[in-house]
Amino acid sequence: MNDISYEQAPDLSVSLWLNTPNDISLTSLRGRVIVLHAFQMLCPACVSHALPQAKAIHQAFPPDRLCVIGLHTVFEHHDAMTPIALKAFIHEYRLSFPIGIDQDAPDNPIPITMQAYRLQGTPSLILIDKIGNIRLHHFGHLDDLHVGAAIGQLLTEKPG
Amino acid sequence: MNDISYEQAPDLSVSLWLNTPNDISLTSLRGRVIVLHAFQMLCPACVSHALPQAKAIHQAFPPDRLCVIGLHTVFEHHDAMTPIALKAFIHEYRLSFPIGIDQDAPDNPIPITMQAYRLQGTPSLILIDKIGNIRLHHFGHLDDLHVGAAIGQLLTEKPG
Amino acid sequence: MNDISYEQAPDLSVSLWLNTPNDISLTSLRGRVIVLHAFQMLCPACVSHALPQAKAIHQAFPPDRLCVIGLHTVFEHHDAMTPIALKAFIHEYRLSFPIGIDQDAPDNPIPITMQAYRLQGTPSLILIDKIGNIRLHHFGHLDDLHVGAAIGQLLTEKPG
Amino acid sequence: MNDISYEQAPDLSVSLWLNTPNDISLTSLRGRVIVLHAFQMLCPACVSHALPQAKAIHQAFPPDRLCVIGLHTVFEHHDAMTPIALKAFIHEYRLSFPIGIDQDAPDNPIPITMQAYRLQGTPSLILIDKIGNIRLHHFGHLDDLHVGAAIGQLLTEKPG
Repeated sequence: MNDISYEQAPDLSVSLWLNTPNDISLTSLRGRVIVLHAFQMLCPACVSHALPQAKAIHQAFPPDRLCVIGLHTVFEHHDAMTPIALKAFIHEYRLSFPIGIDQDAPDNPIPITMQAYRLQGTPSLILIDKIGNIRLHHFGHLDDLHVGAAIGQLLTEKPG
Repeated sequence: MNDISYEQAPDLSVSLWLNTPNDISLTSLRGRVIVLHAFQMLCPACVSHALPQAKAIHQAFPPDRLCVIGLHTVFEHHDAMTPIALKAFIHEYRLSFPIGIDQDAPDNPIPITMQAYRLQGTPSLILIDKIGNIRLHHFGHLDDLHVGAAIGQLLTEKPG
Repeated sequence: MNDISYEQAPDLSVSLWLNTPNDISLTSLRGRVIVLHAFQMLCPACVSHALPQAKAIHQAFPPDRLCVIGLHTVFEHHDAMTPIALKAFIHEYRLSFPIGIDQDAPDNPIPITMQAYRLQGTPSLILIDKIGNIRLHHFGHLDDLHVGAAIGQLLTEKPG
Repeated sequence: MNDISYEQAPDLSVSLWLNTPNDISLTSLRGRVIVLHAFQMLCPACVSHALPQAKAIHQAFPPDRLCVIGLHTVFEHHDAMTPIALKAFIHEYRLSFPIGIDQDAPDNPIPITMQAYRLQGTPSLILIDKIGNIRLHHFGHLDDLHVGAAIGQLLTEKPG
């Protein structure tokens, strides 16, 4: 079912992982659907729509079939959205899924993973199928019905 | 993927079809996913949650792959929820998907299709797969994420 | 504080009162603030916004200081929004404040009280002060903050 | 109308004022109703309910009659909710009313104004009447209808 033309999801460049005992590599998650939520803690649409959706997805699907990963892609207000501030934010908003801090890029306000995925801003939603292909790439909020349908499709596809 | 143990969806017993030039039989829709929304026009949860969801599903998916059908299953206040009242309701709430009025049963306030599907009340949501099996049967509101995922699965399955 | 130029609220012409043991006349409510909500049971904005607001006002203020009255002003779909249908609607939506059915007018689809108040449609909100003057006359939904402020003002004014 | 038993609102101890060309003292606002919103930028209920309400109040009433003041009362996560972070937050959330940063207290995580007003946490809402009395003191979210009614009362009272 997966077309050969899909783009393989780039690796994540993360300077610090939170909410997980071990660092996460996308390769280690083959066989599972990956829901990658790129956000900034001071982005209003992320706080009001995207992160509640990420929480709901994390609760709705079994972790051995689907993995939600948050990616803190700070491209503005770098001195406000520090790792210390993010930890407080995660605590106050009761986020329990793994969250990686996107690696700063030298000479560029846009961090490395954000560049690799060519994200236009936050929130951005990336769905990755069981064999590591990017299957959905959306900037802005996407409603639960469409996200759910896309997830349902990827969960149903045979990995092979 | 479809297990032999699923129940085949009973035919609809409808006294009057609205929003459709022709009567609808489930058999004629084989190959498509069917979303059956049982509601009553004076049921608050139907009006606030289930019917907006039915409208959203109707708009989100192509009609040659998925068909939304409303079923007006009046089991109380029969003299308030008449066909004339339903027509006004459909007009005011801008419902554009086909809606059937469930056939009155003799000596029973519960209409015939509602009995055949053993619905517990309204709203109820039934998902029927491409070969006519009931795959989801839910009383009360089910959030968009779960409904979307179930639809995504059924759309992805091969009919054969 | 009340300016002499305010219009005195016309009497209500009601064919049937519901949710009240006795008929209601505005004159008998002098000394109290009156919140008059004109609605139709098949008007979506009434159901989703205006009637929940009327319920909230009814619960928020003491009945010896403020009185909420619903007025069912049917000006379309007369054969759908009958008294029997309205009774079922009131039951299902758990409306507990007094509701009057606006008196049909001969040779005019617009009922008598709706004409007397020159309402443009539903929902409409009328605030009447302690001495019977119309102080606010609004077609469409008005947010809780503005309605609350107007009520707070009328409750604070001395009746004399 | 104002009872002699009301508590006079303590002065604000503010280390930095934002969104205002001049520092603000409550005394200078006599004759106006003051709506004081105590919040923390990483408090979810502040972000989702209290600050949108403060914005709505700021837009709904004329500034010569009512003044909205935000007070950033940081009592936890001090190293996350810095002035730099608050400035980014104010920019992203488009807050345009004056906001003061509550003065740090020596040897106490609770800042000085928060202590003076005996606030229990955030969000907290304080309404101050035209002569400087505290008339409403609420911890947690208070719905728009009640807040509106309280404001309407204070606006209607004669200052003398």
